[in-house]
Amino acid sequence: MTTGDVKLIGSWASVYVMRARIALNLKSISYEFLQETYGSKSELLLKSNPVYKKMPVLLHADKPVCESNIIVQYIDEAWSSSEPSILPSNPYDRAIARFWAAYVDDKWFTSVRSILTAKGEEEMKEAIAQVEEKTEIIEKAFVDCSKGSKPFFNGDHIGFLDIALGSFLGWLRVTEMDANHKFLDETKTPSLFKWAERFCNDPAVKPLMPDTTKLAEFARKLFPKP
Amino acid sequence: MTTGDVKLIGSWASVYVMRARIALNLKSISYEFLQETYGSKSELLLKSNPVYKKMPVLLHADKPVCESNIIVQYIDEAWSSSEPSILPSNPYDRAIARFWAAYVDDKWFTSVRSILTAKGEEEMKEAIAQVEEKTEIIEKAFVDCSKGSKPFFNGDHIGFLDIALGSFLGWLRVTEMDANHKFLDETKTPSLFKWAERFCNDPAVKPLMPDTTKLAEFARKLFPKP
Repeated sequence: MTTGDVKLIGSWASVYVMRARIALNLKSISYEFLQETYGSKSELLLKSNPVYKKMPVLLHADKPVCESNIIVQYIDEAWSSSEPSILPSNPYDRAIARFWAAYVDDKWFTSVRSILTAKGEEEMKEAIAQVEEKTEIIEKAFVDCSKGSKPFFNGDHIGFLDIALGSFLGWLRVTEMDANHKFLDETKTPSLFKWAERFCNDPAVKPLMPDTTKLAEFARKLFPKP
Repeated sequence: MTTGDVKLIGSWASVYVMRARIALNLKSISYEFLQETYGSKSELLLKSNPVYKKMPVLLHADKPVCESNIIVQYIDEAWSSSEPSILPSNPYDRAIARFWAAYVDDKWFTSVRSILTAKGEEEMKEAIAQVEEKTEIIEKAFVDCSKGSKPFFNGDHIGFLDIALGSFLGWLRVTEMDANHKFLDETKTPSLFKWAERFCNDPAVKPLMPDTTKLAEFARKLFPKP
């Protein structure tokens, strides 16, 4: 396969784009990164994802695949002979990884986002309590998934659920600055705290993790505060 | 495997429970159906799905799997040697099936539901227009997926996307009565119209499809109108 066979439409600040890029890195797949400009959408993006008009879009031999978790599964399945496997091999473990990945998007991140949009002290207090509660639920899930001894949710290497949650870590840091509150903490969430360090330092992730100051500036554009 | 190894916590009127039951029927898996009572939640349900406290829950050798589309994928993977395959075998077709299944839940059904909760003529008119628009998008997806010649989204037999959309057909009929408007129609959506007939008459589905009058009575309890 030539590099030109795989293209990714995306942008540096997007959590969802990062998921696809981590999966491509893990499988050592070369790709062309077609960068979108903030505030506009390219013709190629609109044509490739006419339903949602959103990045990321993976183009594999010009055929588009949309939605980050679907792209990650596609990469795992289309390059199934390239190690490592991103989804666990056991059907039950796969179901558990999919369950928590959906929880991360539908419940956990919805709360994290509400910190960036919180108006006033009361809303911020409520948002912080929500994130704390849900992060502790994920801490317990990590202990269950990793059997308390493995470095990642997936076991010995980064997998589907690691990518789903870990891609948010850059934004979580920005949120922590905004809330003046640590959510990943050595005493409250010791397992996730160490997991996050390992995740960010993994060679498939490290070059992609956005600089917190740059991301915080970008966040101010997206979520302007009075 | 004995029948006791597979149990499903659910209720007759739930779209999401129906998904799991169709998948079990397709694979000819015997199971015990543990029926929940409307308005209360059993201890077993609360213990098996402590995060969402929602049905369906599949119990396989007492291990719980939650969330309908995750259960359907689990059934396909855990009984991978039992025909038919529920997900397409080709990674690209799998990605497309997952994409449209998510669209059905996140976009299409959200609009269908707004018909049952519409207050006044204006809201109903807007809800009808939304459902029409999204149903036509799915009609086009059907033509693409089935290559215009296969009986189901999945090809020759019912698969993942057929289950995701088809499980809503009972509720769609109730919604059509409520709106006094047909959404699946021989002229506007000819392919989906014929697909729906085939789907409802499939031996894996027919015994599960709820009676419209009974479902409409149940809907009035859930969505009381003034």
